[in-house]
Amino acid sequence: MALSTDFGPATALSCRECGTRFDVGPNFACIECFGPLEVAYEFGNVTRADIESGPTNIWRYRGLLPVPDDVATKPNLQPGWTKLVKADNLAGELGMRSLYVKDDSGNPTHSFKDRVVAIAVEAARNFGFSTLSCSSTGNLAGAVGAAAARAGLDSCVFVPANLEEAKIVVASVYGGRLVGIDGTYDEVNRFCSELIGDELGEKWGFVNVNLRPYYAEGSKTLAYEIAEQLGWRIPDQIVIPVASGSQLTKIDKGFKELIRLGLVEEKEYRIFAAQATGCAPVSAAYKAGHDVVQPVRPDTIAKSLAIGNPADGPYVLDIARRTGGAVEDVSDREIVAAVRLLARTEGVFAETAGGVVLGVTQKLLENGKLDPDAETVILNTGEGLKTLDAVSAEARPAAVIRPSLDAFRTAFAN
Amino acid sequence: MALSTDFGPATALSCRECGTRFDVGPNFACIECFGPLEVAYEFGNVTRADIESGPTNIWRYRGLLPVPDDVATKPNLQPGWTKLVKADNLAGELGMRSLYVKDDSGNPTHSFKDRVVAIAVEAARNFGFSTLSCSSTGNLAGAVGAAAARAGLDSCVFVPANLEEAKIVVASVYGGRLVGIDGTYDEVNRFCSELIGDELGEKWGFVNVNLRPYYAEGSKTLAYEIAEQLGWRIPDQIVIPVASGSQLTKIDKGFKELIRLGLVEEKEYRIFAAQATGCAPVSAAYKAGHDVVQPVRPDTIAKSLAIGNPADGPYVLDIARRTGGAVEDVSDREIVAAVRLLARTEGVFAETAGGVVLGVTQKLLENGKLDPDAETVILNTGEGLKTLDAVSAEARPAAVIRPSLDAFRTAFAN
Repeated sequence: MALSTDFGPATALSCRECGTRFDVGPNFACIECFGPLEVAYEFGNVTRADIESGPTNIWRYRGLLPVPDDVATKPNLQPGWTKLVKADNLAGELGMRSLYVKDDSGNPTHSFKDRVVAIAVEAARNFGFSTLSCSSTGNLAGAVGAAAARAGLDSCVFVPANLEEAKIVVASVYGGRLVGIDGTYDEVNRFCSELIGDELGEKWGFVNVNLRPYYAEGSKTLAYEIAEQLGWRIPDQIVIPVASGSQLTKIDKGFKELIRLGLVEEKEYRIFAAQATGCAPVSAAYKAGHDVVQPVRPDTIAKSLAIGNPADGPYVLDIARRTGGAVEDVSDREIVAAVRLLARTEGVFAETAGGVVLGVTQKLLENGKLDPDAETVILNTGEGLKTLDAVSAEARPAAVIRPSLDAFRTAFAN
Repeated sequence: MALSTDFGPATALSCRECGTRFDVGPNFACIECFGPLEVAYEFGNVTRADIESGPTNIWRYRGLLPVPDDVATKPNLQPGWTKLVKADNLAGELGMRSLYVKDDSGNPTHSFKDRVVAIAVEAARNFGFSTLSCSSTGNLAGAVGAAAARAGLDSCVFVPANLEEAKIVVASVYGGRLVGIDGTYDEVNRFCSELIGDELGEKWGFVNVNLRPYYAEGSKTLAYEIAEQLGWRIPDQIVIPVASGSQLTKIDKGFKELIRLGLVEEKEYRIFAAQATGCAPVSAAYKAGHDVVQPVRPDTIAKSLAIGNPADGPYVLDIARRTGGAVEDVSDREIVAAVRLLARTEGVFAETAGGVVLGVTQKLLENGKLDPDAETVILNTGEGLKTLDAVSAEARPAAVIRPSLDAFRTAFAN
């Protein structure tokens, strides 16, 4: 089959470890050193005006992504351009001067995964894959199912069988095939790698395995949007959740590209990483001063971050240390409290992962690592409706009464 | 307290029945004839260019709404500018030529209610109300809770106690007071009217009672957005869900305003109304040729449409008949099938109300009332994550297996 090879400004895949370059293709590991491959570019002249006149979704940044110039005309979910909420109420409670919440629950399937999947769909089209697949802690499965439906592709997604009910439904409602795996996410992920090596899966595009170099680039759009929404400025500090760690490394890459292209002024910025204590291998390595990350078996309500063996963990450590940031973790109890704090102050109902970020932000303020006077952006990467169980015991009616004024008076006397 | 009286282009309240005019104030019923009041305007010169240079939310239309010119600078959820999805896959399955889904699940609390509440919040600020309240079938309670949190107002919301779990959690997670009422929505609504007449509730802004004239105007923004997103053109046909009927009447009002202001070309358009058979008082009246609507006791999975005594029912009948549209209803089984069809074809996971609209669209195509060759917009007003129970029995894993190729082969042999 003659395939399109239009990946826009992408010119090669490059090994992140040894730098060996390869043609753009459905590959993800370096044949020299087994290091991860990432997309290399030769950018054209991209101006603020070009971007600002683009669509209100991630395709306004198509000149900075491995996609063809006409990508916006193809059937896709049009993710991105989510709100950057000026969180003055929350800042007041935390004693901060300038705080923003980048709220990615506004994406089509209500998590940041729509960004990365949209890029992977383009790669799948280019490589002639007709089935879109993934291993997932839940959000990604829904994003793949929905994106495949819109794009007219088949889908088959793999998740740990013990996921939240909402994520199970969302992963299968779009009509693709959902397969539950008795095991942790890391076991699901290993199984998918086996499947790619087998004839069963050889024609499949696993967005986060064999399409990973393209997929991962989607997270750069978070950096682009934050900078543009701040008026073309990089914030002083940013707090990012860590599952595999890919998102954090790509936000750093996105900021650096904006500086290199002259789209924002050069500045120092500090990147902070947030994990749940029940799955904190990167935080543990950071605190111990290690460069390598020891895998753990996850046990936390923040299931979307429950990756015990994070592929990009060492890069996260490097970025946090290089930029003057830090890595921190919070307990499940702190996560729930933070979800409720964000809802109460800003009307944003975050997934548990958002609670991890806000909880860590509070802890970093307490231990003096985060500057309360510096402009700070924190990420909410998912939607509270998908992790209802975390708050459903506490978010209840104040009373249930008959429809009468007397009943109301009795229930709420003084 | 000296109150702001800046309602932008709004100049009066006007009785929809007898036309008597009143000053802009916290009133909702005509003292002459008890008819409903609605906002009257003297619009300035509003151009396409003004609107297009505005923010990507409903405030781009602030010149057409009862809000001050600086409304976008005040703390609010910035609803609107949701996607108009070109639904080519769905159109193909239905044999239609040109079909769009206006997907309001993209709003901050994932229903169209964020639009109307945002206008009510401005009115509450203007009138000095410090507690925001409502009767609700669920979506509105969440929208009020979130909007009040962001705006720094207290909230107290009233819902039928038998609501979906997700809507109960969302109605209370924002920190306001949620009160469950043992009764139907119509009983909740009557109770709220009593509360306004009592000293208990006299300082409260009930968004859909004493702030209703302002609140209801928010639905006009659906008409504005659809027209602008089509390239400043009104569609030939539109299918709209009916609960109270307010949304449908305001979309009609919005289209007429766009024509009157010269923002779109004058044209004929047909408005279709969709109800669930388990709560179809307007559809029943339409089919019987009546002008009045006989109240019913709701029994449907489409709880967000379960208003048995719809205030604007007669206006809906009038608009459907005047524009050459129709009113139709579908069973709970058809609603579920339609939710799944929309998810499978377009990757949009709708609330049951969205299933009502698509199910009715299918029925109107079958009985020849909807023209398959005419440009058609259908509304999805809410989010499937809030009505999971409707599909959770059918949206399941295809299999649960151990993480091994053999287990996969066994489960999916041939």
